[in-house]
Amino acid sequence: MQITVYEVGPRDGLQNEEALISTAHKIELITKLTQAGIRHIEATSLVHPKWIPQLSDATEVIAGVPRFDDVHYSVLTPNLKGLQRIAANQVDEVAIFMSASEAHNLKNINKTRADTYPVLAEVAQEAQRMGLRVRGYISTVFGCPYDGEVSLTESMRVVERLLAMGVYQLSIGDTIGVATPRQVQEVFAAFEKEWGATWFAGHFHDTRGTGLANVVAALHHGISTFDSSIGGLGGCPYAPGAAGNISTEDVVYLLHGMGYETGIQLDKLVEAGQFIQRIVGRELPSKVLKTAAG
Amino acid sequence: MQITVYEVGPRDGLQNEEALISTAHKIELITKLTQAGIRHIEATSLVHPKWIPQLSDATEVIAGVPRFDDVHYSVLTPNLKGLQRIAANQVDEVAIFMSASEAHNLKNINKTRADTYPVLAEVAQEAQRMGLRVRGYISTVFGCPYDGEVSLTESMRVVERLLAMGVYQLSIGDTIGVATPRQVQEVFAAFEKEWGATWFAGHFHDTRGTGLANVVAALHHGISTFDSSIGGLGGCPYAPGAAGNISTEDVVYLLHGMGYETGIQLDKLVEAGQFIQRIVGRELPSKVLKTAAG
Repeated sequence: MQITVYEVGPRDGLQNEEALISTAHKIELITKLTQAGIRHIEATSLVHPKWIPQLSDATEVIAGVPRFDDVHYSVLTPNLKGLQRIAANQVDEVAIFMSASEAHNLKNINKTRADTYPVLAEVAQEAQRMGLRVRGYISTVFGCPYDGEVSLTESMRVVERLLAMGVYQLSIGDTIGVATPRQVQEVFAAFEKEWGATWFAGHFHDTRGTGLANVVAALHHGISTFDSSIGGLGGCPYAPGAAGNISTEDVVYLLHGMGYETGIQLDKLVEAGQFIQRIVGRELPSKVLKTAAG
Repeated sequence: MQITVYEVGPRDGLQNEEALISTAHKIELITKLTQAGIRHIEATSLVHPKWIPQLSDATEVIAGVPRFDDVHYSVLTPNLKGLQRIAANQVDEVAIFMSASEAHNLKNINKTRADTYPVLAEVAQEAQRMGLRVRGYISTVFGCPYDGEVSLTESMRVVERLLAMGVYQLSIGDTIGVATPRQVQEVFAAFEKEWGATWFAGHFHDTRGTGLANVVAALHHGISTFDSSIGGLGGCPYAPGAAGNISTEDVVYLLHGMGYETGIQLDKLVEAGQFIQRIVGRELPSKVLKTAAG
């Protein structure tokens, strides 16, 4: 069975790294990822550089990435103004985002959930007019750093609203890495029952070591797309060394070991990980990357 | 449902740490583990100090650990000579060990598997005469660093021989951390069919990030005891930073999140992890430990 590994390192990873990476190095990283067989890459973010200075070169990155028919680029897009920074032929997808929990949405987007919907709908509509696919992220589905538990009812209400905007896929995020397989199973069983599994991707963080266990739980519910970050780049929500996104090398090792196909060559992926580890100048969390270091 | 978390950090962890830890600190670590609710601790090793200088104070550690009716201590015991270093009333269990693969057994024990059986049988017999329980470890069940793949048939032959020696439990080891959940499922399904699940414990290493996913796979096959190491102490089989045993904090977080009971208090466990992290003087791999650092 084929599983899609959706690389978010150049965006979700690098926006959470302290080191400022040059545009040339970002493009080199993305190039190496394509050479390893990655076919879906969130390349950067169009959030205003005031908020994410690490990705202030978004338009230069998008202009400079290598082009292949089967490599699909996405950009995180907060609003219409962001979307207007790129041309329709530069990407395949835009990603819109919000949180399942009110407190995290307020903190992260500075709007209530109710006030966020029209902004996202506007982006989705304009992107579709430009001929682009729209992907949605829902954060804090498995727990919120401010509200604590997040009810399935709340999450499902957000899912419903985003599906109505015409997204082709919703990435369901464990933003603070609190989920365990039982909860993953509960959430995706409910989603599967209501809408079918094919609409959803799993976006897990490895903050407490449960990331890959959660991937396996989601696989059992028909989820076939997983977001991950090369080297486990990014995400220090609590402390230096704390993990963010699950690492692409580790999830590919897991999937291949379980007999799934990804189209990715693990050895080349590790080369991409080694490259960006050298550039960011700190030991990255990926375990498979560490085994290759000796 | 109750799951037993079997703490191996003071032995399997510390024997793989470069830092030499004082006897007093080892005893303090074990004390803190008991205070967190850990009830099964492999306290040290009776392997000759020439081979494991880190644990050359084995008899002092055993003499100094705190005694409670419900806390059970074990010692790794390679041969009769090792066993003779302790008295019957000092421990509850001895652990005997060998590898499923010939090459690893030769490298680790310096004997063929055939030559190892009589040595283990002798220890088991004498331990039982002393009134002690015997636990067995089988290493490299999921893969060998020298032989590569290890067949289920080979592993099952070793299981059969050790069960015949009267062990009460066999800890099934992924010594180099290559297993993925599908293989774990295959192995434990075969064991369960042949002997029932209750004889077995899971001993997973997190070398490639799959440790907790493997725990979940084993749980699905009725395994209810898991070995782990506080902080993820020990085990750098490939490179500095590479992980050995799964960390006790992370496995307890996982189990509690999935609704299992362990009798362990996670916050106190984290205190034990913080203590030994300070003593060994390096950042330990446990993820839950990192989240508590901020």
